[in-house]
Amino acid sequence: MIIIASRKEVAQLAGVSEATVSRVLNGVGPIKEETRLRVLEAADRLGYTPSALARSFARRRSGNLGVVMPYLPKARIFSAYYFSEILSGIGSKALESKYDLLMLFREPGGSMDYMNLFRTQKVDACIILGARDDGGERQAIQQLSEGNHPYCLINQYFEGEAFHVMDADHVDGSYQAVRHLTEQGFRKIAFLNGPSQYSNSRDRLKGYAQALNEAGIALDESLLFEGNFSRKSGYAAAELIARQLDRIEAVFAANDRMAIGLQQGLRALGISEERMPAFVGYDDSEAAELCTPPLTSVRVPFYELGCLAAEHVLHRLDASESEDESEMNTVLHRQLSTRLVIRASSLHRN
Amino acid sequence: MIIIASRKEVAQLAGVSEATVSRVLNGVGPIKEETRLRVLEAADRLGYTPSALARSFARRRSGNLGVVMPYLPKARIFSAYYFSEILSGIGSKALESKYDLLMLFREPGGSMDYMNLFRTQKVDACIILGARDDGGERQAIQQLSEGNHPYCLINQYFEGEAFHVMDADHVDGSYQAVRHLTEQGFRKIAFLNGPSQYSNSRDRLKGYAQALNEAGIALDESLLFEGNFSRKSGYAAAELIARQLDRIEAVFAANDRMAIGLQQGLRALGISEERMPAFVGYDDSEAAELCTPPLTSVRVPFYELGCLAAEHVLHRLDASESEDESEMNTVLHRQLSTRLVIRASSLHRN
Repeated sequence: MIIIASRKEVAQLAGVSEATVSRVLNGVGPIKEETRLRVLEAADRLGYTPSALARSFARRRSGNLGVVMPYLPKARIFSAYYFSEILSGIGSKALESKYDLLMLFREPGGSMDYMNLFRTQKVDACIILGARDDGGERQAIQQLSEGNHPYCLINQYFEGEAFHVMDADHVDGSYQAVRHLTEQGFRKIAFLNGPSQYSNSRDRLKGYAQALNEAGIALDESLLFEGNFSRKSGYAAAELIARQLDRIEAVFAANDRMAIGLQQGLRALGISEERMPAFVGYDDSEAAELCTPPLTSVRVPFYELGCLAAEHVLHRLDASESEDESEMNTVLHRQLSTRLVIRASSLHRN
Repeated sequence: MIIIASRKEVAQLAGVSEATVSRVLNGVGPIKEETRLRVLEAADRLGYTPSALARSFARRRSGNLGVVMPYLPKARIFSAYYFSEILSGIGSKALESKYDLLMLFREPGGSMDYMNLFRTQKVDACIILGARDDGGERQAIQQLSEGNHPYCLINQYFEGEAFHVMDADHVDGSYQAVRHLTEQGFRKIAFLNGPSQYSNSRDRLKGYAQALNEAGIALDESLLFEGNFSRKSGYAAAELIARQLDRIEAVFAANDRMAIGLQQGLRALGISEERMPAFVGYDDSEAAELCTPPLTSVRVPFYELGCLAAEHVLHRLDASESEDESEMNTVLHRQLSTRLVIRASSLHRN
């Protein structure tokens, strides 16, 4: 509808046929660059603005930076420190570059056909959060890589693949956390990790094992527990951990929510403060600082991960437009450093 | 490009010209409904999928639910409890209805041309967060209303306008908060409010004044302070409030962040715990429960506000498609109730 209005006038001013005006604005068929510019200039001069869709279609651009979110139907996903910080970082860069953020929610139980996001021009670039290491996901990202689309994973890598990844050093983060505990003389250190489909869970396990090994402590499988990063899963783990509290001296949890849930669960089971193990969380969320006792935690620069991932994909988008091949062929795999923040929860009481 | 691929085949199957196929898929020009359906059916049968943009263009649909966000360049906007809860609510409904969420950031210092979002088909419906009562904003929303577009404001109304609004009862929330303080015998109650361009700030002032009035306490202008909802602004207010601490017995703050910032600021100024006033915050964020002492606060159902606003605009979108006029002409102005949650921070120490 928008095109009908004054297509004729644009055609007259540009000295071309109306069909040519349509072809230019729809991005259809081979058009001489000179003709294309003449039409666009005429359209511009006449204040003739086709709809954003028509315009995007012509430019093959949506103006949207996609952010793929995990399927967590019952969780208040934007309220999780992890996502909110990363999104704040991505959002700040989108704002600077005048992109709108398109949040794409994964369907239940599935990987997403990422190629389709580009094929159907829903997004010009995309950032993938919460990817898990399974076959479908791996293949979907391989396709993006082969298609040379501007994409970036955050906080997840795939062994053996040269994918674009912005990550943090979780091996070292966990190593610092557990070394802090062994240095104080704790030897029975339980580990409440996240699901092993996440590379960050596997990295944390490595760091945990490394710190134990250095302290001459054998890894005891019966001290390994798994949650899903929710407070609820930490609360549920309390039951299992309470049974072994005569020997567990400290607990390292893969995020603050699980650590806090676990503490709450232990309290609900009637465990007194004196019998509580030492606690180290992970993420260094606001809650870590506010809870009682304040929670020792590993600081992860999530906001920066979001900023850098957004910068990376927007930069690659520019490179693809200017056909800068060397830029396009450079694969990003960066790890930002993590840092232990010591508070009262992890300190030996003597 | 996408259209060229097999347009010819679609035309043959539908028994129309290729130009007609294009007209149907571009939504251009008058087309008999019967012809339109025949073309769409043929396209469907041939598995001929034009790009999402072309498809949207044809249907005049983007598949996006827009969320207008305030311009807060330095704030980690997704990390604020207020926004993260509302977005979680909106997101859950978008997920259910298979809409993608398009986050639109306001430009610095300006209202947004909302009509343009619809004119350019960036969104099919939109929810407006953080609107302020100024001339430009009011006019932009008036245009949306006149155009009968599916939109909804959250937590903001405009006096004298029949805009679509999902709000909470902030008069009553504040009344409950301040009555809780007066009932304990506090008479000098400072109020750290938000900016007065927000209807929720003006509503809170009404509730504050009403509770004082009922307790026979005159409103004292020198006890009114203003922040901008950030922790920093609460921290800054500590300076002013500390000067009057010999007479201020309690502080009511318009959100938890400011209340917590204010407490931190007072501590940084060397105010001892015994000299601390009683505190009531607002929002009942996670932080209220976790901080020390736990903060009495007013619970606002932000998540539900987000759900209901999303449901409302998606419902109106359906109504506009089925041309259900009575549905389209019904203006929503709903207020959900708020509830005081009492914790240690506000209790009289005797």
